[in-house]
Order: sequence, then C-alpha cells, then structure tokens
Amino acid sequence: MNRRMVFYTTGQIVLIEALMLLLPVIVSLIYRESCTSAFLITIGIALIVGGSLILIFKPTDNVIYAKEGFLTVALAWMSLSAIGALPFFISGEIPSYIDAFFETVSGFTTTGASILTDVESMSHGLLFWRSFTHWVGGMGVLVFVMAVIPNVSDRSIHIMRAEMPGPIIGKLVPKVKDTAKILYLIYIAMTLVQVLLLLFGGMSLFESLIHTFGTAGTGGFSSRADSIASYSPYIQWVITIFMLLFGINFNLYYLLLIKRAKNAFSSTELWVYLTIFTVSTAAITANILPLIGEFSSAFRTAAFQVASIVTTTGYATADFNLWPELSKGILLLLMFIGSCAGSTAGGLKISRVIILFKMLRGEVKRMLHPRSVRVVRFEGKQLEENTLGSVSTYFAIYVICFFAIFLLLCFEPFDMETNFTAAAACFNNVGPGFGAVGPVSSYADYSAFSKFLLSFAMLLGRLEIFPLIIALSPYAWSKK
Amino acid sequence: MNRRMVFYTTGQIVLIEALMLLLPVIVSLIYRESCTSAFLITIGIALIVGGSLILIFKPTDNVIYAKEGFLTVALAWMSLSAIGALPFFISGEIPSYIDAFFETVSGFTTTGASILTDVESMSHGLLFWRSFTHWVGGMGVLVFVMAVIPNVSDRSIHIMRAEMPGPIIGKLVPKVKDTAKILYLIYIAMTLVQVLLLLFGGMSLFESLIHTFGTAGTGGFSSRADSIASYSPYIQWVITIFMLLFGINFNLYYLLLIKRAKNAFSSTELWVYLTIFTVSTAAITANILPLIGEFSSAFRTAAFQVASIVTTTGYATADFNLWPELSKGILLLLMFIGSCAGSTAGGLKISRVIILFKMLRGEVKRMLHPRSVRVVRFEGKQLEENTLGSVSTYFAIYVICFFAIFLLLCFEPFDMETNFTAAAACFNNVGPGFGAVGPVSSYADYSAFSKFLLSFAMLLGRLEIFPLIIALSPYAWSKK
Repeated sequence: MNRRMVFYTTGQIVLIEALMLLLPVIVSLIYRESCTSAFLITIGIALIVGGSLILIFKPTDNVIYAKEGFLTVALAWMSLSAIGALPFFISGEIPSYIDAFFETVSGFTTTGASILTDVESMSHGLLFWRSFTHWVGGMGVLVFVMAVIPNVSDRSIHIMRAEMPGPIIGKLVPKVKDTAKILYLIYIAMTLVQVLLLLFGGMSLFESLIHTFGTAGTGGFSSRADSIASYSPYIQWVITIFMLLFGINFNLYYLLLIKRAKNAFSSTELWVYLTIFTVSTAAITANILPLIGEFSSAFRTAAFQVASIVTTTGYATADFNLWPELSKGILLLLMFIGSCAGSTAGGLKISRVIILFKMLRGEVKRMLHPRSVRVVRFEGKQLEENTLGSVSTYFAIYVICFFAIFLLLCFEPFDMETNFTAAAACFNNVGPGFGAVGPVSSYADYSAFSKFLLSFAMLLGRLEIFPLIIALSPYAWSKK
Repeated sequence: MNRRMVFYTTGQIVLIEALMLLLPVIVSLIYRESCTSAFLITIGIALIVGGSLILIFKPTDNVIYAKEGFLTVALAWMSLSAIGALPFFISGEIPSYIDAFFETVSGFTTTGASILTDVESMSHGLLFWRSFTHWVGGMGVLVFVMAVIPNVSDRSIHIMRAEMPGPIIGKLVPKVKDTAKILYLIYIAMTLVQVLLLLFGGMSLFESLIHTFGTAGTGGFSSRADSIASYSPYIQWVITIFMLLFGINFNLYYLLLIKRAKNAFSSTELWVYLTIFTVSTAAITANILPLIGEFSSAFRTAAFQVASIVTTTGYATADFNLWPELSKGILLLLMFIGSCAGSTAGGLKISRVIILFKMLRGEVKRMLHPRSVRVVRFEGKQLEENTLGSVSTYFAIYVICFFAIFLLLCFEPFDMETNFTAAAACFNNVGPGFGAVGPVSSYADYSAFSKFLLSFAMLLGRLEIFPLIIALSPYAWSKK
C-alpha cells in the first residue's frame, strides 16, 4: 500500500484547484464583485493544504495498484468539494457550509441539484465557479491532472479506471497521459463549438459559458431560475443536441478523429442510446401534446427534457413535474439508465443495461440447457466472465445503495415521490426530481443530515460506488 | 421436447382443480347459497378440459427436462387461474371476467390484492374458494399433484424446481414424491394448529379457515373489509406469529422433525429474517408511537404490519398508508426483500439478498486484488459460480421486470406512489400498496388492461419470472 502516493496526488489535485480558482477571480474582477476576496482566501487555503500534502508525503516510489487508484480518487473528490465550497461560504452568499458543500459536490459530480432559492441574486464570480465545477467534474479531475502534469506513470491507469464511468475502461493510445490529453482536447473542442453556437444565438458570453459548462459536464446548473425555459427555440435545440453529444462515449469521437468512422457508427451502445432517445421523445410528445397544444412546441419540449434526463444533465424548459404520469414514469426510468459509458453522464450507463439484457438471454438458455456455456458478446467482442460478474454485481450494489439512500431520506417529512426521486436524481447525478424537488423547486428544505446524505449519494453515483466504499473500509487503509 | 407430457400434466392439474372445487360446493350447500350451481358448472368445465387434455396427450414416455418443467408450471398456473375465476363470474358476484381472473390469480399467487369493494356482501362459498386458492398456491399446486398422484417420476424435480421459490432447491429425501409429501404434511399440520388457535380465540370455524388459508399461503384475503383490525389482540398475535412461521424455509421444519434442530437453528437465512423483523418492528414502533399513544398497542400494530409485509401476506390491522414516511419506506423495502426461500412467501427472498451482499464483498476484494478467486459461502457451503451468476442475473431481470410493469401502469391516471407500490405489491405478491391501493382501498379502479398486467405481474412474481418468459418464447415450443 503506497499511502504517500495517495496523499501526494491529492495534494497535486488541491494545487490544481487553486489554479482553477483563478478563473472565477478574473470573472469577479470584471464584474467588480466583492466575492473576489472569498476566492483569494480559498486559493490561499488550497495552496497551504496542497503544498503541505506534497511536502509531507513526497513519495519514495510511484508504483501504485488498483487500491491506491480508488483511494486517490475518493480522497481527491472529497478534498476538491470541501475546498471548492469555501468561496460560497466565505462570501456569505450561501450562509451555511453544508449548503455550500452540497452545491459544490452537486457541481463537481455534474448533478446540478441546487439549494439556491434565488439563483439570480448570486454574483457572477460564484455562478461562474459553480458551473465551472461541472465542466471539470464531467471529464474527471484526475484525468485532467494526468493530462497536464509531466512524468505521469503509466500506472495512473488505475486512477483513470477508478474515475472514468462504465464497465470497460481502456486506453485509446498506449500511454495513459496521451489518452487523457486526447480526451480533454476533444472535450475542449466540443465546448468551444457550443459556446460559439450559443453566442450566435444571441446569448451573452457569460451565459454561454455557464450553459456550455452545464451541458458539457451534463451538469445542469443555470444562471436563471427557470433554467432554459425563457431562451429561444434555437438555443434550446443547440443545448438539446449538445447534451446528446456529451452523452456519447468519447472513444467514438476519437475513432472519428482517426478516420475509423465505420467502427464508431457500429457501436451498439450508440444505437441503443439514440433509440432510447427517439422512442422516449416520441412517446412523451404524444403524451403531452394535449397539454401544450402545438406539435412543434410539444416535440421540442419533449426532446429537450428527454435529452436532459437521459444524459443526466437536468436542465428544463418545462415543469415536467406537472406532466401526465406516463411521461413522468419514462423520465424516472431514464434517470436510472443514464447515457453511454465513457461520457460525462451519470446513471447506470447504457452499456451496462445492454450487457444485463444479454446476460438474461444467456441465463434463460442455461436454464433450458444446464450444461451449456454462457457466451455474451458486446461491441463485437466476447466478454470475459469477470466482466459479466462485475456488471451484475455492480447492478446489485447500485440498487442496494439506492434503496439505502431512499430509506435514510424517509426521515424527512416529504412524500414518497419526493424522497424517492430526490434519491434517484442525486444518486444518478441528474439534479431535479419530482414532487417537492421538481425542476422549479430546490433541495433547500431538506435537513442538514439529508443534504450531507445526498452529497454522499452524488459522489457515490459519480465515482460509481466502489472508490468511496473502499475508502471507507479500514481494511483498505491497512499498511499491508 | 416432450410436449405431450406438458399438456398431460396440465390436464391432471385441471382435474385436481375440479376436485378442489368440491370443497366450496360443500360450504355453499351448508350456507344454502345460490352460488352452488356456479361451482358445479365450473367443475363440469374443468372435467371436460382436463379430461380432454389427458386423453389427447397421453404421453408415450415420461422423460422430461428443465424446459418441460418450466412450460408445465406456466401452463398449469394459467389454466388454474382461468378456470378458477369462473365461479365468481358465472355466479355474477364478480360481473366482469377480467376482475374475476385478477382475483383468482391474486389468490393462487398468494398476493391478496383484491378488486372487491364490498367483500362482506360476498357469499360464503365464494369467499371460501377465494381463500382456499391462497392455501393451494402457497405450497405449490404441482408439488401437491406430485404428492398425491401415484407413479411420480423422479424427473418431476424439474417441475418442483420451476415452481418452488428460491435460489437453491433440493430434495429433502431421495424421492421427489416423498419430498412433496413431507412438505405438504408439515403444511397441513401447521394449518391445523393455527385453525385450532383461532377457534380458541373465539373466531367462527368459517373465519378461522379463511384467515388460516390467508396466513398459511401468505396470501392476505380476509372475509372482512377492515382485514384483521377488528379482531382481538390475541387473534392478531396468533396471526402475526403464524405469518412469521410460514415465512420460514420449510426445510428447517423438516430438519426439526428429523431431530436435527442444531442444523435448523444455524441457518443464516433464518437469523437474518428474524433480525429484519425485529429491527423493522422496533423502528416502526418508535416511529408510530406518537400516533397511537400507547406502547403495547403501537408494538402490536408494528409487529403485525411488519410480519404481514415481510412475509408478503398483506393482512392489516391499521391503515399504514397514513403512517409517517419512515415507516412507509421500511415497509416498501420489506415488500421487495420478502421472506425465506422455500417458504410460501414472495418477494426477492432473503437468501438471495444475503448472497448478493456476499458477492459485493467478494467484488470489492477482487477490485483490490484482481487475480484473486471469488469464494462465496452460504449456509456452510461454498456456492458454485453458476449459482452466483444465477442469483445476480435473477436480481437484474427482477428489477427490469418490475420497472417494465411500473412503466406500463403509468398509463393510469393514479399518482406515482400508487402506481409504483401497486407494481411492487403485485409483483412481490404482497397485496396492498400505498396511495390509492392502500390497505383500506382496492384495485377496482384500475383499467382492464392494468388488471391484466397486474395479474401477469403476480404470476411472474410467484413463479419467479423464468417459467413465464420461457413459455412466452416461441423458441421453447419448437419441436427440437
């Protein structure tokens, strides 16, 4: 167990956060806001904490294994959130630290659940920081560190595996550092294109950045209380399409880049994803048409909400809490399914759902022919028994965690729909749920205990459970 | 594929049902009710259908495999329900056939969900038949047939496996027929003891039988609109204890019979079951104490409801729909967990939940040490990889089926809580849910489509999904 390396890398992450905090400083200087000092104080704290970690835990060797990968990721994300919450708290714009922590975890985990009841009164600097955490959390903080820090050991694949979502994580290119770079370059390029398209639609630069960060990370924080509802149909379509694009496995973009389009378009997960989007949009369009009256508007509204929920972004152009039960049921299901593995989205991931369905078929066959061997193929490859076991076990722990969160939320006086969907929306990193946590409401009325619980749920969901569980088991920290 | 044997056995089952229908005939004769003729007509139909099946499909050999087992079970349960619904329909006491079908499926699957809005106006004969289906469905209709029909081939283990719930089904004694006999003798003995205890508490013989059938099969049909609420605390405690007893794996009673009490009491599943009951009862007692005021009454009410829900019986002594969210959350969770494998209860079964948790621990270990071998021990034995795979795959298909049922129910105008818990209560064979399907309400207001869907859900739950899926796939029926 290489503890030094775990703390050392965490120190690096905290220093990187100090650097990232310079961006909102610039924003707050431009708008001449008083929150500048809150950012500067936080940067000071981050430098002290990160610097101390690096000095104290300078590693003697950089050999790490899976365990160190999980521990680093868990520790790094918790430190990032704890420190990232300080500007909200120090500036006094979010007077309670647990509220600020909730908001920051919600940002980094790209959930987009908010405790703010009056978002439009917040300063630009803090709104920028809040949305920027989405952008950073989307592709992964540690992946970012790997891309920018020199001399990255190829053993960092353990960190990447722990941070990247999905059942099968591979390297695009032989070197981990190059893989991380490629992923971030694609991410940055797509971000720039979306900003330009939003600017073209008449959005201000500030709002374009806020909403692009929220889209790219599939987060969902907006600078407006009514989310995307008051923007033009053009803007709504741009965001719809980009939410969908950021819900696709980034490996496919890499395949496109190296001119292997045929491989990219033969991805089963991609087609299932697009089919889910199309079928859900069609069903909801038909279901809400009587409510909205006009087809093109109903279609746009349905497409936006479906894209927002299936990619676990959480933006809204309508209060879908008031929709008929069928539409709500479909959206609830989409929250759990999520988008493609290797994207910035949360949820169970479509590839896992596909593999589960294929295992099912295999199980029926085995029940009829007990001596037959189970063979499951996915994306053209035969999956190993270990992978199959991991997928089904992950599904079990996912459901168990979800119900545990839901049960603990039941201490709240809210109704079952609210608590159930609050748990679903946070655990799957969606943001808004139904009932009292619908798209026009907030999580402000939950108790401090529940806010902490939901913050934990968001981290569990974003890091796919195991890093946190391993970090919380004393066994993992033992010297051996 | 031995089709003849599948239809032949189904024919036997239908003939047995004709025999069983003689019991309510006797009841209706005693009470001089007009429904006698409805029973006699049904017996006639059953004799014709069953007789024809037996004559047409007289098998040339009785070799069957797993596939025939699944198909027989699926076909038999559907035929039983379709014919068992006729007395309600022909007598006119349930004017719609789909309602009568729902009620009968609910009976045989030991669900206890009802479409009756005025149960107390029903004739004694029909109430008796309704509850008797619980008793028959609890231990399994085909297990009963194996116990009583001469010359049962040992290959019938395939049928028994398909009908008995739980992840691991074994024979108690070398011969299948003897195993079936032992199980039914234990079942009958426990039933008799409960009837006597209820009679001792001042209940009439008719009501004692009705409620013992409902308890033994963990079904939940009562002859009173307020279920068990107006009976004495003594009666409530007797039913509480017997619900718990019928939720225990019947293999343990066999172990007690052959004086291997030590083995019986070392069952992990038993202790987890009792712990779940104790912890849930304690939590709910504390939670509802302010509502009820007096401790002994709160404790009795909590214990009754917990026992009723965890064993998926569905009797009630209180409208738990009005309880605080925490109590409702606990009950909802218990609905899914269910009781022990090899009992008459529904749900996921505690042994599966235990195995899932153990697999989880194994998965964490494997993530930390990728080359280690996964070893899961349960009830003192190391589980085979195949069993582990089956448990986790079953869990996945269970969750998928549940969500499919829930989504299809969303076509109804009821709120999310109602539809979600209606799906949970029917699929897990509990009976009452929350919201508009709470313990003082009924399923009467659901559409014919949803009643059919929920009937299917009850069968899926009782037969543990695979028999029905296999019966519905054309591949299974192919000649090969």
